[in-house]
Amino acid sequence: MDLRSHIRSIRDFPTPGIVFRDITTLCKDPEALEAAVDALTEPFLDDRIDKVLAAEARGFIFGGAVACRLDAGFVPVRKPGKLPADALERTYELEYGTDTVTVHKDAIEMGERVLVLDDLLATGGTARACCELVEELGGLVAACAFLIELSFLPGREKLSDYKVISLIDYASEDE
Amino acid sequence: MDLRSHIRSIRDFPTPGIVFRDITTLCKDPEALEAAVDALTEPFLDDRIDKVLAAEARGFIFGGAVACRLDAGFVPVRKPGKLPADALERTYELEYGTDTVTVHKDAIEMGERVLVLDDLLATGGTARACCELVEELGGLVAACAFLIELSFLPGREKLSDYKVISLIDYASEDE
Repeated sequence: MDLRSHIRSIRDFPTPGIVFRDITTLCKDPEALEAAVDALTEPFLDDRIDKVLAAEARGFIFGGAVACRLDAGFVPVRKPGKLPADALERTYELEYGTDTVTVHKDAIEMGERVLVLDDLLATGGTARACCELVEELGGLVAACAFLIELSFLPGREKLSDYKVISLIDYASEDE
Repeated sequence: MDLRSHIRSIRDFPTPGIVFRDITTLCKDPEALEAAVDALTEPFLDDRIDKVLAAEARGFIFGGAVACRLDAGFVPVRKPGKLPADALERTYELEYGTDTVTVHKDAIEMGERVLVLDDLLATGGTARACCELVEELGGLVAACAFLIELSFLPGREKLSDYKVISLIDYASEDE
């Protein structure tokens, strides 16, 4: 299955100069969706993953499905103000400004093996913050897995402490 | 599997007087997550569902997993400004103010059977708007399925044109 052919590239979204990699064209195709979930699951079938953790919103699409396949629990990472119980938060730098992600303190138990999942690895800020939240809760980051990687951005460097896999790579903005 | 026992009820979130039904305690439990996805899937196994459609963000957790189980595509419904291609939008009334949901115009093809999924049926505004978007695109709403229903609110009335199932019912705010 050529997953890349199911991604739609849209120029100048959300801002001029950016090529947005649209996963909705992959998600709406049953075979492509299944193949993507399979490929995100397969490397971890023998890895005793306890929890799959993903950031809102697109990460949830694959997170729930991969968690089910791995017989793992699913942990949502959310924007501030969305989680109702006691939560940890982590603020990280963006090109302009900062962003904050939160997770329930009871989401992960000491020593649990956690797969951090997202649709896209770009600058790596969100994924790095997710990994730090996992570790602050006493969990172990088994790996980070992404549907798409933009390898012309330094995301993988920011995750150099972790095993990283991605299914589709764009080596330049224009590709 | 007693799914209800895996839901955490949190008083006065997000505002005083509201009891928030927290699904994160269900999602983090592998058996409960699997059982919920199974129960949301099972009624539709023979229903030739083409697409599962869910609104961000919590709906995505179950939407992707149920779509895979049904060999269907997944269609995300999003807040305005999030979808990169040509989109339809629908604005609906809340108790105070309005909310708007959007879907890509190419997400559903004429005559496709669509399962509208969400974690929670409350007043039904979001689900009703989702159904109207499906129909405006020429799709057929095969059913609406929810993990949780708050049956003391008029959500089911607002969906009276459709088949509706829910797995867990709260008949009062205090239950």
